[in-house]
Amino acid sequence: MAQPAAPSVPGSGFTVPYLLLHRFVVEAYRRSGLSDADASTGADVLAMTDAWGVYTHGTNLLRGYLKRLRAGGLRPQGRPHVAMEGPAWAIVDGDSSLGMVSSVLAMEIAIAKARTQGIAYVGLRNSCHFGAAGYYSWLAAREGLIGLSMANDVPSVAAPGSRGAVTGSNPIAYAIPAGKHPPVLLDMSIATVAGGKVYAAKARGEPIPDTWLIGSDGRPTTDPSSYPALSALTPAAGHKGYGLALLIETLAGVLSGAAFTWGVRAWMLDDPALPTFHGGGFIAIDCDAIMPLGQFGRRMDALIDEVHSVPRADGVDRVFLPGEMEWERYERSMREGVTLPLNVVDSLREAASFVGLTLERELG
Amino acid sequence: MAQPAAPSVPGSGFTVPYLLLHRFVVEAYRRSGLSDADASTGADVLAMTDAWGVYTHGTNLLRGYLKRLRAGGLRPQGRPHVAMEGPAWAIVDGDSSLGMVSSVLAMEIAIAKARTQGIAYVGLRNSCHFGAAGYYSWLAAREGLIGLSMANDVPSVAAPGSRGAVTGSNPIAYAIPAGKHPPVLLDMSIATVAGGKVYAAKARGEPIPDTWLIGSDGRPTTDPSSYPALSALTPAAGHKGYGLALLIETLAGVLSGAAFTWGVRAWMLDDPALPTFHGGGFIAIDCDAIMPLGQFGRRMDALIDEVHSVPRADGVDRVFLPGEMEWERYERSMREGVTLPLNVVDSLREAASFVGLTLERELG
Repeated sequence: MAQPAAPSVPGSGFTVPYLLLHRFVVEAYRRSGLSDADASTGADVLAMTDAWGVYTHGTNLLRGYLKRLRAGGLRPQGRPHVAMEGPAWAIVDGDSSLGMVSSVLAMEIAIAKARTQGIAYVGLRNSCHFGAAGYYSWLAAREGLIGLSMANDVPSVAAPGSRGAVTGSNPIAYAIPAGKHPPVLLDMSIATVAGGKVYAAKARGEPIPDTWLIGSDGRPTTDPSSYPALSALTPAAGHKGYGLALLIETLAGVLSGAAFTWGVRAWMLDDPALPTFHGGGFIAIDCDAIMPLGQFGRRMDALIDEVHSVPRADGVDRVFLPGEMEWERYERSMREGVTLPLNVVDSLREAASFVGLTLERELG
Repeated sequence: MAQPAAPSVPGSGFTVPYLLLHRFVVEAYRRSGLSDADASTGADVLAMTDAWGVYTHGTNLLRGYLKRLRAGGLRPQGRPHVAMEGPAWAIVDGDSSLGMVSSVLAMEIAIAKARTQGIAYVGLRNSCHFGAAGYYSWLAAREGLIGLSMANDVPSVAAPGSRGAVTGSNPIAYAIPAGKHPPVLLDMSIATVAGGKVYAAKARGEPIPDTWLIGSDGRPTTDPSSYPALSALTPAAGHKGYGLALLIETLAGVLSGAAFTWGVRAWMLDDPALPTFHGGGFIAIDCDAIMPLGQFGRRMDALIDEVHSVPRADGVDRVFLPGEMEWERYERSMREGVTLPLNVVDSLREAASFVGLTLERELG
């Protein structure tokens, strides 16, 4: 990993060395009462997500987590622990700790059990928003396992024929290790578009395509200001996204003993003094138990090389594997620093102030 | 189960008692050299799929399988067997037997292992087209387990930016047991629409929406006659369907040791004397290991009841759970007989003739 560059402020963002960004998040969490280990885990997830260029789910979320930690809905000293377990499964009780802390533990247990059994499922309850689902899948892939991670959330997405929200946007991610190539990494929600895109259109005062939202009359609406009070996101590919939402609701919420649908609270909007009761689901598969990891990696490389070589549409330079753009941004972030959008910098400034820090001093 | 009604021939289809339909398929397979047990397994899958009203993947496929069985690409006496296994995983070699025979074995092993470990994965290689993915998931759900089943196939679906097919339409299904309600059951392909819909538009001489196909120039086409030689299906929800296709390709093809992408042969179009080398992936999760099955069923019922009670769009009578329409058709099929579309009847007549039977005598 190259030496991080000095920070700079181009028009489009603020470039900061990864290590300084990570250190700042650690310090903010420590000042919120987290142990050094938990603060570091929480910082790992957010800083890595920014390094991938997924700024909606990186340190942009820190401010909200700090508020919950102070108000008590997130417990700084919460101790996630195994509530029940068997040979290839476990249920982790998050104890209302930071969602990243309980989710990392859950995936680590899934990885450990998969190493002896071949595959393992870990359900998580009493969790909170866990950030980017892809992070936890990657924890598995970097150790040679296939990782799947998912979570439920307060409803924001319609079902085919419904007039309002029925399921959460229920993120699901997978990561698959390869050989010479970086892991294939997909992180998606089951909605057609993220709610953030609707908010962005609203901020710009622009209408949205009529495929994004279902209004309170059960019909498509192009008015972004209706969301979320008076409209719901459409499920991706209609009944397919809706069907995946229910599978995730089951593996993350029903089977784990967590809350589901309206039993989950909105982590940003609802009372920060109360737990949100999110659920999570984590599956790890140990490729090396089934096929020598080198052989599996060569087979994945062949699949990836094939995708790279397919004929392309006019004007298309490359056909990407899921995660490929993120890995290229990651390399650049580590080499040149993480370039945060200005809205994220504003959010971080507030977060810093909230715990008595000055952002410019921390990242300068 | 009510006594099946006598067959009848309404304008829209041919209604036949389930038991006669099943018996006919068994006899056709026996005449093709399958053992009684394998013939019965093969008939279970196709007749059940018709009873669900999924006529594209039911007995309509019998004719094609019989041709492969006679030509040798499917081996009537093939013996699927466990090639390798561990505590919570196995790889089944299908030995080029009927895809239903090897897939049922694979899911049965997944169920048995999940009962002791909590979850299990079984990969399948040297398989063929397996019909409706949902059938195998349901095998798990009817025993109180969550079932996931998937398979790869010869490429027919584009990737974002590609000019031709990159992945198979890669079916994936899940089934989740409930309490008072029937299992939630989703069976989907990762393409926007099934290739069958394109063929149907072609037969009617109608253009198709510009969201279904990518032509040989990499742009949307509304000409159904271009498929499959000169166009590819679009992935559902773009990069999301494409990403799921690669996950399925990995779990069904790469990890199982099966062929993947262009290594898989087209079961209907390619030389019927050669194996197709399809792969499959099957996962079972034993709910009862994690939570008493009654409690899990009550939680699923609560989720289902909630979906049933959500406000609906104008003109919408019900919001359905995945599989709910299929279970209602199943009840009717068992009560009143299976109403086969006339094109399926034509296909069955050919199948009957192919093995020296007369359809009307078998189903009359």
